[in-house]
Amino acid sequence: MKSALEFLVAAKRCEIHGLDQLAVTSQLVGSIGRLVHLLQKERGASNIFLGSAGARFGEQRQRRAAESVEVEAAVRARFDELETDSGRLSGGVRLFSRIAYVLHGLDALPELRARIAKLALPPAQATAAFTELIAGLLAVVFEAADTASDPVISRALVALFNFMQGKELAGQERATGATAFAGGRADATLQQRQLHLIEAQDRCFQIFSDFTEGDILAYWRTVEACGEMAELERLRRVLCTAPAGGPLDPELSDAWYDCCTRRIDGMKAVEDKLAASLQSLCAAKSAEAHADLNDQKAFLDSLSAGVPTPAASFAVFFDKPLNGEAPQALIAADGFGPQLERSILDMVQAQSRRLQAMSDELNAVRGALNERKVIERAKGLLMAHKGMTEDQAYKLLRQTAMSQNRRLVEVAEATLSLADFLPGARSGRVV
Amino acid sequence: MKSALEFLVAAKRCEIHGLDQLAVTSQLVGSIGRLVHLLQKERGASNIFLGSAGARFGEQRQRRAAESVEVEAAVRARFDELETDSGRLSGGVRLFSRIAYVLHGLDALPELRARIAKLALPPAQATAAFTELIAGLLAVVFEAADTASDPVISRALVALFNFMQGKELAGQERATGATAFAGGRADATLQQRQLHLIEAQDRCFQIFSDFTEGDILAYWRTVEACGEMAELERLRRVLCTAPAGGPLDPELSDAWYDCCTRRIDGMKAVEDKLAASLQSLCAAKSAEAHADLNDQKAFLDSLSAGVPTPAASFAVFFDKPLNGEAPQALIAADGFGPQLERSILDMVQAQSRRLQAMSDELNAVRGALNERKVIERAKGLLMAHKGMTEDQAYKLLRQTAMSQNRRLVEVAEATLSLADFLPGARSGRVV
Repeated sequence: MKSALEFLVAAKRCEIHGLDQLAVTSQLVGSIGRLVHLLQKERGASNIFLGSAGARFGEQRQRRAAESVEVEAAVRARFDELETDSGRLSGGVRLFSRIAYVLHGLDALPELRARIAKLALPPAQATAAFTELIAGLLAVVFEAADTASDPVISRALVALFNFMQGKELAGQERATGATAFAGGRADATLQQRQLHLIEAQDRCFQIFSDFTEGDILAYWRTVEACGEMAELERLRRVLCTAPAGGPLDPELSDAWYDCCTRRIDGMKAVEDKLAASLQSLCAAKSAEAHADLNDQKAFLDSLSAGVPTPAASFAVFFDKPLNGEAPQALIAADGFGPQLERSILDMVQAQSRRLQAMSDELNAVRGALNERKVIERAKGLLMAHKGMTEDQAYKLLRQTAMSQNRRLVEVAEATLSLADFLPGARSGRVV
Repeated sequence: MKSALEFLVAAKRCEIHGLDQLAVTSQLVGSIGRLVHLLQKERGASNIFLGSAGARFGEQRQRRAAESVEVEAAVRARFDELETDSGRLSGGVRLFSRIAYVLHGLDALPELRARIAKLALPPAQATAAFTELIAGLLAVVFEAADTASDPVISRALVALFNFMQGKELAGQERATGATAFAGGRADATLQQRQLHLIEAQDRCFQIFSDFTEGDILAYWRTVEACGEMAELERLRRVLCTAPAGGPLDPELSDAWYDCCTRRIDGMKAVEDKLAASLQSLCAAKSAEAHADLNDQKAFLDSLSAGVPTPAASFAVFFDKPLNGEAPQALIAADGFGPQLERSILDMVQAQSRRLQAMSDELNAVRGALNERKVIERAKGLLMAHKGMTEDQAYKLLRQTAMSQNRRLVEVAEATLSLADFLPGARSGRVV
């Protein structure tokens, strides 16, 4: 029969296996970050190429596409590395479903590019296609963050996910603003969308800041403090305060695009640091757990001559003082004494305390992800059921929260609790 | 490279593996229920044996002990069946740690029994030892409920855990009342403890009722409606309303014990039904998932001649209507047409909707477990830091909740949020 210590070792082994899985997932997340960055660039180049009826960015678009193809192969290779046959990847049900969705999008990319090359697609549809694919890739990152069982690594993944999401929203802002300037006229719908994207970005970067410390946060602050940000804010003001229907200077389109691009490239450098830090975190945690396991194993080996006697177990497990009664004197035990047995029980109890602390921290970290899920789903519900756009849905939730002096997530929860009364209201929206 | 459909199959395989694990865990939970029931009987018999200085229940205690030993071996065999070597049991870190703790207690049982036989232990200490061991066993059940990834099975486990916990509290009530009557005098501390045990039982059975439907709930209602309950309530009234220090009829001790025992045996029948229903639920879910997997595999095989073309993928994944624009006509695709591709994407999206619905339900079910965790930990904090007994801690939380018109769990959360300001306040209490 297996002993208490063997189960303690088994628990440690599970922890190590979980950390090893996280290391693999973290590398996958790093690859996805690179692919998303290139798809964002390809989206921008394709948009200009289509918008100029092929006059501009023809060569640049092809170069971007070639880069994307290369990194796509790396991401697919990472997907292939995942343990799909055994059915034993923790969180595999959700992760694999997300990946199945993304692979559909990747399979369709060659056709998307062929149509863009033939100018056989409206710019808005090309942009929407890239955006959908990027959203699918980010959903894979979200799933990785949601299933991480180590709170420190989970924090790092939540920070990274929110940063990637904020960067994607910055990319969408770049595209929206470029379209608005290029149109030469202020458009109320685009202005509203612009404001929504700015606000959603701010939320993402706020969560990123809340979950990040030290050098990387300081580095991000220097990126935000550089010249681009002031220029960007000036252009945002021009864009968003122009009276609807009034003129916009189309010449500003390129300045806007360049300014946004420099900022986004700065973000990529932050993202790379986050991804690298995540990987070294996984390695450090794994090394630590392996060292613990070796200690436990050595201890187990030292016991191989026998097992603690029932008397020794009793002395430690049950012989505790009861409500003011004097504790019974520790009995003299044959074989393994109470001292040794005590140290095993201490290990079990230390483990139990550590697990509880980890579980508390994990709940706190996942709270940030859950709030996101709830808000996204409430938006999806309003979109599906009230025929609203994403911006309108978000605005309604936010205004309700402000007028009722409640948190956004509370209003979103209240919205979702109505879902069962609305026919067909459960939306299948991803993340 | 692996296809989208292969990842869909992999996701299903993970689901099946999770269900298979749950089937094993459910059998373990069934065995634990049997052992807990016997230990409860042995605890009662030992208490009377020690309290009567060996005059009563000598033979009965030995028979109870022999029964416990037999079922203990069955539980240990179930522990041994668990996959400890691979480090790949989902939720293994916590489950194995709980089991390690329980094994310590089981190792000490022979010594506990030897001392009881020699009358070398005060009754209160013997009772406390059994109670500690039973708490450890119930913590294993709690962990099983907390890690179940299927919401329906999770509901069944939450119901079963709360029922087992309620039954254990009924057992403690039986012991406390027997001691109070036997003492012949009303004791304010015992009376307070009695009231606490009644209230805590009610909470457990309420959660059980909330998470159970149909036949089993109806059966439980008939058990509660039988004669024992009226007699029990009468004796409870006698016990709890006697003026402190006033006389109690020691003759009622046996009547009390018998009445409680009939009720607890009735509970065991309900528990057996719950455990059996849990196991058939696991089997049904697993069969369902296997059938899904076979469908998906057959579909995958039907594709083995080739893969969908990018054109077909594009038609389905990207060629969607955009804000009021007319959808592009579906292109004619070589090889696999959009129709086939559409059905794969439909499968992915149906899966995604199903996972989201499952995740919502699971969150709701786990809410009940989390509330329990939070309240238990707040009690532990007050006990460790304010030197309160469990009853006093619970009473303080409940009174605060009533006077502030807040839910008990909210007050418990507020209490825990002070934990960081109290030195040494993080308690290592199990569950």
